[in-house]
Amino acid sequence: MKALEQRILKEGKCLPGGTLKVDSFINQQMDPMLMESIAEEFSHIFSDSGINKILTIESGGIAPAIMTGWKMKVPVVFAKKSLPSTMENILSTTIFSFTKNREYEVYVSRDYLHEGDRVLFIDDFLANANAAKGIIDLIHQAGAELTGMGFLIEKAFQHGRGPLEKAGIRVESLAVIESLDGCRIRFQNE
Amino acid sequence: MKALEQRILKEGKCLPGGTLKVDSFINQQMDPMLMESIAEEFSHIFSDSGINKILTIESGGIAPAIMTGWKMKVPVVFAKKSLPSTMENILSTTIFSFTKNREYEVYVSRDYLHEGDRVLFIDDFLANANAAKGIIDLIHQAGAELTGMGFLIEKAFQHGRGPLEKAGIRVESLAVIESLDGCRIRFQNE
Repeated sequence: MKALEQRILKEGKCLPGGTLKVDSFINQQMDPMLMESIAEEFSHIFSDSGINKILTIESGGIAPAIMTGWKMKVPVVFAKKSLPSTMENILSTTIFSFTKNREYEVYVSRDYLHEGDRVLFIDDFLANANAAKGIIDLIHQAGAELTGMGFLIEKAFQHGRGPLEKAGIRVESLAVIESLDGCRIRFQNE
Repeated sequence: MKALEQRILKEGKCLPGGTLKVDSFINQQMDPMLMESIAEEFSHIFSDSGINKILTIESGGIAPAIMTGWKMKVPVVFAKKSLPSTMENILSTTIFSFTKNREYEVYVSRDYLHEGDRVLFIDDFLANANAAKGIIDLIHQAGAELTGMGFLIEKAFQHGRGPLEKAGIRVESLAVIESLDGCRIRFQNE
């Protein structure tokens, strides 16, 4: 997606260790107009997938997910990183965060993710796919069906796509970064 | 806002201790079509306020904030509940959570909240206004100007509005709950 790539080139900051900081338009300050274009793109890409629900994880995925849900006219469910005292019928899984070097739990209620659901997962980043694997586990526990995964930015050099595609999952990323070597942002197929 | 009130009556669950659970359309599963109506309403209410930015707190406020930002064509910034290792120029404040009975910190970067900003704060709930007071502190630290606060649901019986209005802040809530006594949801001016 050209508009996203251009924005990454213009405002993205590359930090040592393969970190790409996109705080000015995605991760802390969000550009709603860009989010709408992103949602339009996901809605187009997954138009034939027959989904009835979008799933994401707080907080990075919520904005693109809600706008994609609006475009596709389906509800959006988000997995939580802390367990609300009022949650019932809890499903949970453990995710290892590479960035924070620790494990964390995510929770979703079976009331909103269950058998019969055809789910599109939306998130901001695909890196080593640890979060994505946790989501697959949650969807499996719920007895729901995963129809695809859509990411705003994929860091191809962290190899998350391989295991997902091996598991038969359709993976679509709007901007695929081949390398951040020498703090130069290089997209795939450049 | 009639559509929101009707949805609360239909799907809201009242729990002991004055808790209103709206997990099926706001707090875990979100209805994007309702969020768009909410955003339209906020956009109308605050159309004359000359804002250049919307501020919210993760995670409950993100969905209504991003859609309102889209309607009003302004960026949306969210205060974070955990400190990202890459955040610079950090502003922080402490909020006491009545629901969880503990304090937590929220963080925002001065890069995205600063002097000259005219800010609309959007959040899901107004209860005792503890989060709102933290936000006022952050905006004050940043040297920005708060032009108003918009909430989806106000629990009037927890008296958060008083201190905010006393501080000269414009407070607008789309559904105001007068009482949950006996687990009956009663709106103001019914």
